[in-house]
Amino acid sequence: MRAPKGFVLSGVRAGLRKKRGLDVAMIVAEEGADAAAVFTKNRFQAAPVVLSRRALQKSKGRVTGVVVNAGCANAITGKEGMAAAKSVGKRAAELLRCPEEQIFLASTGVIGVVLPDVKVRSVLPKAVTSLSALGLDAACRAILTTDVGPKVAQASFTANGSKGRVVGFAKGAGMIHPNMATMLAFVMTDVAATPAYLKAALTKAAGVSFNAISVDGDTSTNDTVLVMASGKLGNERLSEPGDGAAFQQALSDVCRALARMIVRDGEGATRLMCLDVVGAKTERDAKLAAHAIATSPLVKTALAGGDPNWGRILAAAGRSGARLATKKVSLTIGSLTLVKDGQPVDYEEADAARIFAKEEVPVVVDLGVGKASASLITCDLGHGYVSVNADYRS
Amino acid sequence: MRAPKGFVLSGVRAGLRKKRGLDVAMIVAEEGADAAAVFTKNRFQAAPVVLSRRALQKSKGRVTGVVVNAGCANAITGKEGMAAAKSVGKRAAELLRCPEEQIFLASTGVIGVVLPDVKVRSVLPKAVTSLSALGLDAACRAILTTDVGPKVAQASFTANGSKGRVVGFAKGAGMIHPNMATMLAFVMTDVAATPAYLKAALTKAAGVSFNAISVDGDTSTNDTVLVMASGKLGNERLSEPGDGAAFQQALSDVCRALARMIVRDGEGATRLMCLDVVGAKTERDAKLAAHAIATSPLVKTALAGGDPNWGRILAAAGRSGARLATKKVSLTIGSLTLVKDGQPVDYEEADAARIFAKEEVPVVVDLGVGKASASLITCDLGHGYVSVNADYRS
Repeated sequence: MRAPKGFVLSGVRAGLRKKRGLDVAMIVAEEGADAAAVFTKNRFQAAPVVLSRRALQKSKGRVTGVVVNAGCANAITGKEGMAAAKSVGKRAAELLRCPEEQIFLASTGVIGVVLPDVKVRSVLPKAVTSLSALGLDAACRAILTTDVGPKVAQASFTANGSKGRVVGFAKGAGMIHPNMATMLAFVMTDVAATPAYLKAALTKAAGVSFNAISVDGDTSTNDTVLVMASGKLGNERLSEPGDGAAFQQALSDVCRALARMIVRDGEGATRLMCLDVVGAKTERDAKLAAHAIATSPLVKTALAGGDPNWGRILAAAGRSGARLATKKVSLTIGSLTLVKDGQPVDYEEADAARIFAKEEVPVVVDLGVGKASASLITCDLGHGYVSVNADYRS
Repeated sequence: MRAPKGFVLSGVRAGLRKKRGLDVAMIVAEEGADAAAVFTKNRFQAAPVVLSRRALQKSKGRVTGVVVNAGCANAITGKEGMAAAKSVGKRAAELLRCPEEQIFLASTGVIGVVLPDVKVRSVLPKAVTSLSALGLDAACRAILTTDVGPKVAQASFTANGSKGRVVGFAKGAGMIHPNMATMLAFVMTDVAATPAYLKAALTKAAGVSFNAISVDGDTSTNDTVLVMASGKLGNERLSEPGDGAAFQQALSDVCRALARMIVRDGEGATRLMCLDVVGAKTERDAKLAAHAIATSPLVKTALAGGDPNWGRILAAAGRSGARLATKKVSLTIGSLTLVKDGQPVDYEEADAARIFAKEEVPVVVDLGVGKASASLITCDLGHGYVSVNADYRS
């Protein structure tokens, strides 16, 4: 896939991890880009997260180059980790002939190991000479860790009569959860937009995508979603919240597609639960219940086993802290109602099992006390997850 | 093991579950007992929980008979479930010639299925004729579900120069978590004590035992801990909070021993993490961090794999919402410090691996911002857990 106008990419190998393949990606906005990002809310923020947030502030939302590495998260690495990340940013700025604050860094991998900055710096010249609009594929592969495969999505939109593009790529499998754990996503577009506009648009898009999925309830120290706008479309620069509804739609679509790929690719996942909690007193209640259900190991193992064990779903809602009316609660999977007014309905177990055997299981829980709702997509917890995670570092 | 003076027990089979063996337990205080209980905080409370709480209130803390069944939780079963539980209580009261409110009920098993009360009622006469001080073993076995084995603990104490006993038994493997999911525990003692005293003593004991363990973060609809005091020891009746320090110690010891058996028996568990979070701003912060770490699937799978992946531990603390000083945080496993002042320490990976290979892994996380602390024992999440839970109902 080609990158949107104004962007070139590359992927190279620095040897940061034992397994073969690319591990450093570069994205360059040839004439710079307006940009905005959202970051992890974990109190431990990896060195690249701290530096990138600072850089974006200093550059007032301008980004020229992005350097991403897999194989090392460079998180909880103290001053040494900060120095290592800085030295990579400095070298990238020299090579791309831009101010250091226009370099955006991201890392993913094991926590607590300082980035081997010498290795990364030594491959940056090659990364620069390899840059091309078709380098998206290599860049995309370079940022993967336990992902099953690359995650790329695109959408188009019309602005001022011209057809624009949004192209994004992401990594993330384990540690995925609202607030975006070990998840990196980079979205490029040729639209012209102010950084403030992009920030609002990205926040909105993340709310219905990256922040509405859960693999294991863990959030990482490194999560980052960056959106960059080259302005090559030549449209009137989007700046007011109401501007560019078509662009917002395309951005949200790309984020949603990437988020769905991430949760489907959840470590060892074989099945998704598309959960809607409705009838909640407040949105906070709805989210509390959805979160408790989506992260319950008992719910997730039942999903792995294809077992429509709805008691576990309601028990999770019951302990979530969300207000609910025990005599009004209902639960529906697909088109089959299992619980109504707090009582089990007489249904055929085989029908329920058939729905739970599918790749995507729609579940609606009605708390029976209000009108607020929340949606969350989660995946099952099976042997695959254990195999991947009990042995991740070796 | 003999029950304390004043108690007789039995275990019989009603055929409530497919697998062979006992499934109904009875405890009888021959001349009644003063009692107190703590129950699940799940908003869905099983019929027996609702009825037992009510009965204890009505009887002002007197219990004569306890009927416990495995194989069916009788939770989220609406009016039918309530009627079924009531009919069991009524029949037990008739047989034991006591007021209905002196019957205490508890159930464990699958949620959403109404208790087959006819089956239970039909075996109650046999349960009554089988009662004996040596029936503890049968009663203990009758309440197990996915437990690997029976869980019994005892301790002795001295009051007014006489030697008293505390004997408890419990069930619980999955769905164990602070707030005591699918966990039933029954503690008998010959001490004389008021129900109010017992309530305070039990609450204290539960705080350092059942509420300080976590298997999978789920809490059930049925959890119950009951303490019964026959008064046969003939001591001056304990009534003030400061009374009977030796009894309190024995009660806490028994609860702690049972809790430890439960978490060690966590579904598929092979290893325990004994977690202390210290240096927290408040106890709430300490508990938030401990809870996040102890329920993190990434931490628990690393524990299963014997992998001292401390980054996952700190990342969980970082997302917990607990306040912490990223530059002061430290982490110690056994006698080995891995992180100090927010930076990884130079340690031998082999030493860390050796500690994580043991059956019990002591972990201390210092948040570096205060003096509050919290302890929690959790178990690993391995293939065993998935095997048990992906297929529980079949």
